[in-house]
Amino acid sequence: MWLVLDGEGSLSRQVYRGVREAIRAGRLAAGARVPATRALARDLRVARITVIQGYEQLLAEGWLETRRGAGTFVSAGAAVERPAAAAPPSLGVRVSPARPRLSAFGERVLETRGRPLLSAAISTRPTLPYDFRYGTPAILDLPTTAWQRCIGRALRRASVRAYDYGAPLGNPALREALAEYLARSRGVRCAPERLLVVSGSQQGLDLAARVMLEPGATALIEEPGYEGARTAFRAAGARVVGVPVDAEGLDVVAAEAAAAGAGGLGDVRALFTTPSHQYPLGAVLSLARRRALLDFATRHGALVIEDDYDGEFRFEGKPLETLHALDGGERVLYLGTLSKVLFPALRLGYLVLPDALVEPFLRARLVADGGLAMLEQVALAELIREGSFERHVRRSRARHLERRETLLAAAARHLGDAVEIVGSNAGLHVVAWLRDVEPAALRRLIDDAAARGIGLYSIHPYYETPPPRAGLVLGYAALTPEAIETGIERLGALLRGRP
Amino acid sequence: MWLVLDGEGSLSRQVYRGVREAIRAGRLAAGARVPATRALARDLRVARITVIQGYEQLLAEGWLETRRGAGTFVSAGAAVERPAAAAPPSLGVRVSPARPRLSAFGERVLETRGRPLLSAAISTRPTLPYDFRYGTPAILDLPTTAWQRCIGRALRRASVRAYDYGAPLGNPALREALAEYLARSRGVRCAPERLLVVSGSQQGLDLAARVMLEPGATALIEEPGYEGARTAFRAAGARVVGVPVDAEGLDVVAAEAAAAGAGGLGDVRALFTTPSHQYPLGAVLSLARRRALLDFATRHGALVIEDDYDGEFRFEGKPLETLHALDGGERVLYLGTLSKVLFPALRLGYLVLPDALVEPFLRARLVADGGLAMLEQVALAELIREGSFERHVRRSRARHLERRETLLAAAARHLGDAVEIVGSNAGLHVVAWLRDVEPAALRRLIDDAAARGIGLYSIHPYYETPPPRAGLVLGYAALTPEAIETGIERLGALLRGRP
Repeated sequence: MWLVLDGEGSLSRQVYRGVREAIRAGRLAAGARVPATRALARDLRVARITVIQGYEQLLAEGWLETRRGAGTFVSAGAAVERPAAAAPPSLGVRVSPARPRLSAFGERVLETRGRPLLSAAISTRPTLPYDFRYGTPAILDLPTTAWQRCIGRALRRASVRAYDYGAPLGNPALREALAEYLARSRGVRCAPERLLVVSGSQQGLDLAARVMLEPGATALIEEPGYEGARTAFRAAGARVVGVPVDAEGLDVVAAEAAAAGAGGLGDVRALFTTPSHQYPLGAVLSLARRRALLDFATRHGALVIEDDYDGEFRFEGKPLETLHALDGGERVLYLGTLSKVLFPALRLGYLVLPDALVEPFLRARLVADGGLAMLEQVALAELIREGSFERHVRRSRARHLERRETLLAAAARHLGDAVEIVGSNAGLHVVAWLRDVEPAALRRLIDDAAARGIGLYSIHPYYETPPPRAGLVLGYAALTPEAIETGIERLGALLRGRP
Repeated sequence: MWLVLDGEGSLSRQVYRGVREAIRAGRLAAGARVPATRALARDLRVARITVIQGYEQLLAEGWLETRRGAGTFVSAGAAVERPAAAAPPSLGVRVSPARPRLSAFGERVLETRGRPLLSAAISTRPTLPYDFRYGTPAILDLPTTAWQRCIGRALRRASVRAYDYGAPLGNPALREALAEYLARSRGVRCAPERLLVVSGSQQGLDLAARVMLEPGATALIEEPGYEGARTAFRAAGARVVGVPVDAEGLDVVAAEAAAAGAGGLGDVRALFTTPSHQYPLGAVLSLARRRALLDFATRHGALVIEDDYDGEFRFEGKPLETLHALDGGERVLYLGTLSKVLFPALRLGYLVLPDALVEPFLRARLVADGGLAMLEQVALAELIREGSFERHVRRSRARHLERRETLLAAAARHLGDAVEIVGSNAGLHVVAWLRDVEPAALRRLIDDAAARGIGLYSIHPYYETPPPRAGLVLGYAALTPEAIETGIERLGALLRGRP
């Protein structure tokens, strides 16, 4: 697509910026005719007035011009008179003389610029009735009444200290409440002063990358794996090496081979893993592998980053001890988030730190943001303390179990042999491998599905080296059983319609 | 003091940790007698039960032991049996074999570990009736009713998108509201898509340091100046060079000399300044200096970071155009915070970015935290939109003006020639140079003042190279005129009591 909406500001502003960028980048040449407003609105699934407003701004600024009766065109001067487009194209780099020099970090993060923003997908896509996006908050389940009560209480009871800078590890009451909750629910035992409250997994991963990874150091990560970890490690300048995953989770023997390839012992500084429900494939790391992994980390002097992103939702089998509990927490940094069990806009998560890392992480956090907003922290502490949080977790687990059962039954009924479902014994998503769809044909299937109200998402972005199969990550946390049933039924009809 | 409370968790836990750290660090030797609970409680100004509880935990874990009738002692084995204390003292470094290797960044942030935490001062000190701490929120002024209404509205009106991941530049409604506010109040004109909402100045400075500063690059900063900027630049590995400040603000000629010393043109990547009210000395950067500074930045290809931390509060003189407005915003990153005009626990601030830096900063923010919590952003947008915010600013300005007048009159009456007051034409603090107090005697004055209920703060921490004079930073935003009057009167009596 020549035009990309970036999800920032109003839709018409996005159209304005998208077209302007297309001109700057040369995707729309000077003199080229731009699509009619009606056609573009249809393609983008936005109102026509949105496109008209965007075009008007572009006309006002001289990027576009109208020719009577002929339509709207890129101005003859627009593409060449701007500094960005004036870069010598033969160099293959875009030179913007106005941009101050960036650090190596600044250049590295810019490399992600081709990647579409999640928020763009969230804010610009029309709502689909059967949207299997993973990570959409399960708003129907949320304990909104209890949450509003806790927020209200936190506001009314606020002393002067509640308005001031807070404890940099995070609100003490929240850390006490989380430490007790983690001990009860996940067997993770830690003193509250080893808990660092962060604004979500991403801040936790970024702090870990900054404190632990030198540019050039090696970090291992599951393949396929969590993109947020890969991005944070890369931004720190680390060499990120993928370790394959099989039915038992991360393959520790392959990790040894990767470490040897990376220069042998002593070179691997960190290893990122999702042992309780491998993200996204869903395998549970076996106990033997857990032991081997800790042994690997000990020999390499590497830190294990254990992301227990959906540890609350386990439906089958006996829960295994976390790596943190197995290890005693000296070699393992345990990472949790409230984004799945409550909602992403809360922006709260936590790190359980090895004793020796508390001080460096605390100091890094003081540099990074000086601490988090107080209101949500105090309200969440209250939500946990009054019991509403764990009631919510229990209820959510029952609802997610029902959604999962519905999904699996519907898949068996409507998809049959056309798919292979994996990773269903925990979490809020499954992976469906498509037997009869070529990877190259997946994009079209996703578009066709969207036209039928079904939101589908390829597994390929989770891979560094995509596999030769087409696969979907099906999130079901935000859908009613009825929507799941209908969505899967429609997907089955769609799949049968293709040879 | 051998024992430091770190402000984390309950007071008894802090006593526990403080004593344990003193043992580990060798400040309390094995076999040494620890202070009686009553004496330590008095020294720390905490309840005796707090110290007893801390000691009990230390006794339970074997760090301390009691000898019948003789008191409490550090256990014979405690100081040597722990890994931290087992490090060869001759090396002068504390070796903890359990700690995984840190990155260079991790080691750099650890260097700040000797510095006491602000939060420790906030949470552990008994409340003083005449506390002149700068930065304490003016809770008496806060529009708490309007704020609670806006929070409540944001909660009730939340759609599913408000619970999901938000726009990474910050909530669009907030950016629109802030852009309009900045244009109206500060003459800073920017499109909302050049505004990046951050969690406060600190996150803004950290993002700037990461994106702009290579390890080894030079960053200039006012001397004396804002420690948060110095810390962020140092953590990025930059060489931080102080530029002296005089009555016209930052000395641009001295900046040239510093740049030449740093290796000449092209080496200076960033310059941090507080032109509207130099922090902490309070000078207003003259127009001639503003022009010279922008010229300097152009010649060096350096980014100017303009921190307008208390730009809302100006009491005398015509406001000068911001550097951002003078420059057009291509060379200037404008930084603002809501911590002073509302309160620090809100954790909201903003960057106005040069066009060419929007994308790198946006990508850096996605790596750093993926975005901020939604609730406060939506509520603040509403507070601005409904007019409550600017009513609050106007009211606050009038109240702060009254506080300033009270302070200046009280100082003239009670302190007379004993002090020289500077920087009083804007902001929420003044600097009082003490004519008759030696720098070495200031600590005792501060302690004596605390015993009389007066909270005083030295200016020395703002300096890289402290001056030969004793000076105080007197914040007055959180005090009533009566408290200011009494506090200054008592300070006068205290100063006259010393020869």
